[in-house]
Amino acid sequence: MPTPQTSAKAARTPIERVSPLLTDLYQFTMLQAYFDRRMFAPATFELFVRRLPPTRNFLIAAGLEQAVDYLRDLHLTSEDLAQLRATGLFREPFLDWLGMLRFTGDLHAIPEGTVVFGNEPLLRVTAPLPEAQLVESRLVNLLHFQTSIASKAARCVLAAPGKTLVDFGMRRAHGSEAALYAARASYLTGFAGTATMLAHPRFGIPVFGTMAHSFVQAHDTESGAFEHFLDSHQSAITLLIDTYDTETAAHRVVELARRRTDRKIASVRLDSGDLAALARRVRAIFDAAGLREIGIFASGGLDEHSVAKLVVGGAPIDGFGIGTSLDVADDCPALDCAYKLQEYAGRPRRKRSAGKATWPGAKQVYRHRNSRGELERDTVAAASEPPSGDPLLSAVLRAGQLVAPLPTLDAIRRHTATELSALPPVLRGLDTHAEHRVDISAELVALAARVDAEFH
Amino acid sequence: MPTPQTSAKAARTPIERVSPLLTDLYQFTMLQAYFDRRMFAPATFELFVRRLPPTRNFLIAAGLEQAVDYLRDLHLTSEDLAQLRATGLFREPFLDWLGMLRFTGDLHAIPEGTVVFGNEPLLRVTAPLPEAQLVESRLVNLLHFQTSIASKAARCVLAAPGKTLVDFGMRRAHGSEAALYAARASYLTGFAGTATMLAHPRFGIPVFGTMAHSFVQAHDTESGAFEHFLDSHQSAITLLIDTYDTETAAHRVVELARRRTDRKIASVRLDSGDLAALARRVRAIFDAAGLREIGIFASGGLDEHSVAKLVVGGAPIDGFGIGTSLDVADDCPALDCAYKLQEYAGRPRRKRSAGKATWPGAKQVYRHRNSRGELERDTVAAASEPPSGDPLLSAVLRAGQLVAPLPTLDAIRRHTATELSALPPVLRGLDTHAEHRVDISAELVALAARVDAEFH
Repeated sequence: MPTPQTSAKAARTPIERVSPLLTDLYQFTMLQAYFDRRMFAPATFELFVRRLPPTRNFLIAAGLEQAVDYLRDLHLTSEDLAQLRATGLFREPFLDWLGMLRFTGDLHAIPEGTVVFGNEPLLRVTAPLPEAQLVESRLVNLLHFQTSIASKAARCVLAAPGKTLVDFGMRRAHGSEAALYAARASYLTGFAGTATMLAHPRFGIPVFGTMAHSFVQAHDTESGAFEHFLDSHQSAITLLIDTYDTETAAHRVVELARRRTDRKIASVRLDSGDLAALARRVRAIFDAAGLREIGIFASGGLDEHSVAKLVVGGAPIDGFGIGTSLDVADDCPALDCAYKLQEYAGRPRRKRSAGKATWPGAKQVYRHRNSRGELERDTVAAASEPPSGDPLLSAVLRAGQLVAPLPTLDAIRRHTATELSALPPVLRGLDTHAEHRVDISAELVALAARVDAEFH
Repeated sequence: MPTPQTSAKAARTPIERVSPLLTDLYQFTMLQAYFDRRMFAPATFELFVRRLPPTRNFLIAAGLEQAVDYLRDLHLTSEDLAQLRATGLFREPFLDWLGMLRFTGDLHAIPEGTVVFGNEPLLRVTAPLPEAQLVESRLVNLLHFQTSIASKAARCVLAAPGKTLVDFGMRRAHGSEAALYAARASYLTGFAGTATMLAHPRFGIPVFGTMAHSFVQAHDTESGAFEHFLDSHQSAITLLIDTYDTETAAHRVVELARRRTDRKIASVRLDSGDLAALARRVRAIFDAAGLREIGIFASGGLDEHSVAKLVVGGAPIDGFGIGTSLDVADDCPALDCAYKLQEYAGRPRRKRSAGKATWPGAKQVYRHRNSRGELERDTVAAASEPPSGDPLLSAVLRAGQLVAPLPTLDAIRRHTATELSALPPVLRGLDTHAEHRVDISAELVALAARVDAEFH
């Protein structure tokens, strides 16, 4: 069976710091103006996805840990300030003040791994206006990506119950951070691990490795390449058998497995051709030789649809490497994710732009379940309303400090598994679009009308 | 007119180092095996896109500068080695050797900004096998992303001749590196700049800023918000006028422009609604007030198709902020990009996997133009063949050292403009798929047959 080359561990090395200048210029020009008028009263912003695309019946919240790291570390270095100064757009008293800016606010959030829907705030930030404003672009950048990937990964997990799924997408992920965070987001959703080496020291994610076609090609014969790999490695060996002719290669594996009893071939990998047919033939070759313990691992342009087809068709495949389609969320590479001002200086606010209106004020999401524990409906309500159902948002930071340690990645992974098991059947379909019922509380609707009358 | 808040400059600050463990685990397990047998002979790998998707008639090569930075800086730190050691998969002599590994090979490449097609090597790496192997995943990761974004950006540039295009996509780009490199890739393709602040110190890209809806919402009145922004900023001011009612806001801008003669309002931004209709009404309001110099800038879910429609329809819009669709290349977030072994130890090699066969040996691409200078056809030939047409690949690194300084970003940008002007009309369509003729030389076809007979 395909097995990880390394086990999970609790490691957590922080990612390299990204300059807080990775934001939209307008955050700084707005902050200059806020500074000039001392607009430092508390503001509440919320981050949410406006509506789900037709290819998503639910989302999995992810990326909170990185968002919290970002907020807790937020500060501009003298180099950052020099780069802002060099634009000529800012005045010195503002830059001095900016150098001292830290995130001192409160953060409420829906835990990572939770099933979420449109209009539901994943984060609620309450902080002095400049702090809450500045963090907009990067918070969206962090939450949007991991939520996109976790939501895609969840579809793969639903498509292949009991199978070993591995993230293979690093090379076509959109840059280094995307590759690392895709490994994290897919693991927390139920993937067994990733091929991306760096995800192991960074996040403790089990890492899987096979071999590339170039390894086989660099040898004069395929058999020679396989044997050489066995010479160099002891365990968790996966041989790639489609470089020239898959069935011929499978017979070579049989010969090798019989002769090299000092090594354990865990699995073979198929990366091209008719995977279902080839898997059956290879399985038959191995079984006839009494090599039932050698697993078959498949890869090559797979997504949740092709994996589902292989699984439903009963192809004897034990695990799947899912790469590009996962790491770029190919059918939905972006969600309609926004971060909007909902309250400032104690007064609820609302954007009314055509097609992009928001619900005002600080909000909470309440979840209602049926007697089987399945999700039934959610209510988005004012945070000040009496609770109804289970509240999804809870305090993560108070005055910039962690309320409690964040959950480990494996704890998040267990939570996601529970969440996925509570999905009603109607939301589990890969090809059918269904909308979960998300109500807006009567109090929120009334508040929106009052705000509309007030601001223009 | 929309104007950048900063001008272009020649700055080039290196990006933070990314650990070389950002690669697939199998690179290291294969290297252990190469090391064990001292398979250090020269290998040639090529990076190419197998075939273009239906939504791309051509690609723009991009990302070479980052690939070169990566190769020149390639080394494993003691921390990297400790992280590899901790997996238990590698032996000490190998890790010692790995600590000394540098990139000592040759790199040939098609210059950034060049129009390229399927099967054409963007890079050719010739180096001792372990070096050329190890760099696979990250080279693909770097080249694939910027080429994807530049190719998308080129469609936007073709859709909006003479308009000011600005990258607005940072928040929904896939992480920090994607945001930065998307700003770079779109600028080199002809965008006027980006909203991403960090792209200015890093790449010298002009940066544009407007204001967010939250700025307007945080004030008790829209007029007050506009005036406050004018108090704090001197020049290149763009006011966002769609928070509540766009036409009402346009009249407020007129009142302000007349009263505040100490400030220059460069443009207004529309971010929602029927952009063509609103732009016409706002233009009429400004023109009637004699404010012809105030430009109209549009944003909000735009892509090359919606921009083309606005341009063709004659909407009075001077510039476009293009965000999500650009930064995630939404209609094609991944290309079928591969990095394949073509020669080892002096013998050409070839992968024959179903649907993924490659052409063996080191190759060159020759371009043929018609009498108007337009692209006519390309030939992919063995590098050893006599030249025919203009060769596209040239030496960038020899023995790990730069052959010549890399072009500046603005030089690349001028090259791209020339390349786009030489596109034949048939390839310029946004909605029609056309395939450029790319021939495989007779010598290459014959070589493939010889290699097939030799390896199995």
